[in-house]
Amino acid sequence: MTSGEDRLIARFFKPLATHPGALALTDDAAIFDPPAGYELVLTADALAGGVHFFQDDPPDLIARKALRVNLSDLAAKGAKPLGFLLTLALPSPIDDGWLGRFSAGLRADADTFLCPLFGGDTIRTSGPVTVSIFAFGSVPRGGMVKRAGAKAGDRIVVTGTIGDAALGLAIRKQPDIARSWKLDVALHDHLIDRYLVPQPRLGLAEALRFHASAAMDVSDGLAGDLTKLCGVSGVSAEISVAAVPLSAGAQAALKSDARLAETILTGGDDYEIVCAMKRDEVPAFSALAAVAGIAVTDIGVVMAGHEEPRFIDAAGASMSFSRKSFSHF
Amino acid sequence: MTSGEDRLIARFFKPLATHPGALALTDDAAIFDPPAGYELVLTADALAGGVHFFQDDPPDLIARKALRVNLSDLAAKGAKPLGFLLTLALPSPIDDGWLGRFSAGLRADADTFLCPLFGGDTIRTSGPVTVSIFAFGSVPRGGMVKRAGAKAGDRIVVTGTIGDAALGLAIRKQPDIARSWKLDVALHDHLIDRYLVPQPRLGLAEALRFHASAAMDVSDGLAGDLTKLCGVSGVSAEISVAAVPLSAGAQAALKSDARLAETILTGGDDYEIVCAMKRDEVPAFSALAAVAGIAVTDIGVVMAGHEEPRFIDAAGASMSFSRKSFSHF
Repeated sequence: MTSGEDRLIARFFKPLATHPGALALTDDAAIFDPPAGYELVLTADALAGGVHFFQDDPPDLIARKALRVNLSDLAAKGAKPLGFLLTLALPSPIDDGWLGRFSAGLRADADTFLCPLFGGDTIRTSGPVTVSIFAFGSVPRGGMVKRAGAKAGDRIVVTGTIGDAALGLAIRKQPDIARSWKLDVALHDHLIDRYLVPQPRLGLAEALRFHASAAMDVSDGLAGDLTKLCGVSGVSAEISVAAVPLSAGAQAALKSDARLAETILTGGDDYEIVCAMKRDEVPAFSALAAVAGIAVTDIGVVMAGHEEPRFIDAAGASMSFSRKSFSHF
Repeated sequence: MTSGEDRLIARFFKPLATHPGALALTDDAAIFDPPAGYELVLTADALAGGVHFFQDDPPDLIARKALRVNLSDLAAKGAKPLGFLLTLALPSPIDDGWLGRFSAGLRADADTFLCPLFGGDTIRTSGPVTVSIFAFGSVPRGGMVKRAGAKAGDRIVVTGTIGDAALGLAIRKQPDIARSWKLDVALHDHLIDRYLVPQPRLGLAEALRFHASAAMDVSDGLAGDLTKLCGVSGVSAEISVAAVPLSAGAQAALKSDARLAETILTGGDDYEIVCAMKRDEVPAFSALAAVAGIAVTDIGVVMAGHEEPRFIDAAGASMSFSRKSFSHF
């Protein structure tokens, strides 16, 4: 006797369970022998259809995004990924084609990031597909980079470019808007791709441990996330908006509509890293980033005080936002 | 600036994050320093409204069931709970009263079972409430009790009583049925309670490590789950149905309708433990169970062979089931 659920697990998910401790997904639980001298870093993120992704998005990309948003958290904490567990709520009837593409995407990224599946649960729901991933990684004991720790005088550095995913989402919601932004196909596709497939900055995890005083991944918008980092660090900050790194697509969009600055700075889904470090650490950190092939940009400074961080525009004025970051509620 | 999501986490979930590594839920991830000499046991289970619970079930009981089904897995593996992460998908608008009762129930059990919250994610969904829990525990290195390992000649032992939750669910779906079973209020309420609030058998975790050759928790029905255990152990089994322990409520129901034997043996949601052990180990295991206040019953024997386990009724015939276990798909 093999139930439908067992068949589904064996067919679609067992190939991802490459670690012996996963017991080929044939047990109630997995075994993990933690490496001596290391601490574990634990994180969980969930995505729901119609909220975090469009129901007709390519299933391989939904899977990859679900894993990558977790890997982005590990990267920001200076951790090396070790594995993940997955709970997947699926509407009936099961679409084997959809599930095949979903698991193939998940497998590709599990392989790429050396982060195998250890277990999970597959359930039925009357609602949309909901993907919940718990990921764990390791840092040398005491080495996790926290949000708390930024000090007055530290420089604020971000990876990659900011705002692309939020603009990509805006295009997906209202495709005509790309024309008004005068984007060519390449720029258009770049912004969409940045929304669909985040790039976890794992190549910088070690450099963050050596050089950063505080870090977090930018998932809910740079303005709001930096506000959180400053809040738990007990500091303020001043950001030069002109220094915030933008892709060519975001530059083109902003040129055609200056109000998009708010979307760029608060829209979220960037999955870049914002971190603070002593001014002296910036050159060595930048050199390691260059080796990893990841752009990093100094965008401002940590200040003493408890005011919210200020975003200073080209005219020297402090920007105000209608909503600083994405929130579900 | 505090978002609705931050407010919700601080109000409802921070009180559960009693471990310092949870960083009061103010970071992207938690830190956990694994105890030297131990392996971690990892498990995840999800519950969806309308599938695993009724949408109008008391929210504290939904929370407790969600945690307890994971703790039941840890117990069956011989593990001591260490902590959990939670992802919670909630419909809009948020009902603060509901969430207050949900988090209070979760907190009560996190305290009872010494299993604090380490982190998670709260998201919005257009579907039903969906609760996904990842729990982790510890066993001395090499000590996890697996499904594989049952040997011909081993006795098969179950904890508690079987079938109560499936009968409780049947009553909830069709309340009149309890009258035809001639249940008094106490028996009726016992069956309902067994469906709503499983009892993870953590008091037996250590005894299982010392005495069991294989074990799993009974979540999808005794017949199907024992079939899985035998399958990965490469053995068969013979169960004496008359020996399967039944509560007074289940006995009354079965007396009024003999066909309920199938519901009892295949209905699931028992969250008892089924295990195999050498005949010589049964007395010592039973003594430890008595100390823990958990009933254990010898219900049959592991046999050589690869046939599915047989359930032998009082007349000596092998029972056949239309469906051996619960499956979502």
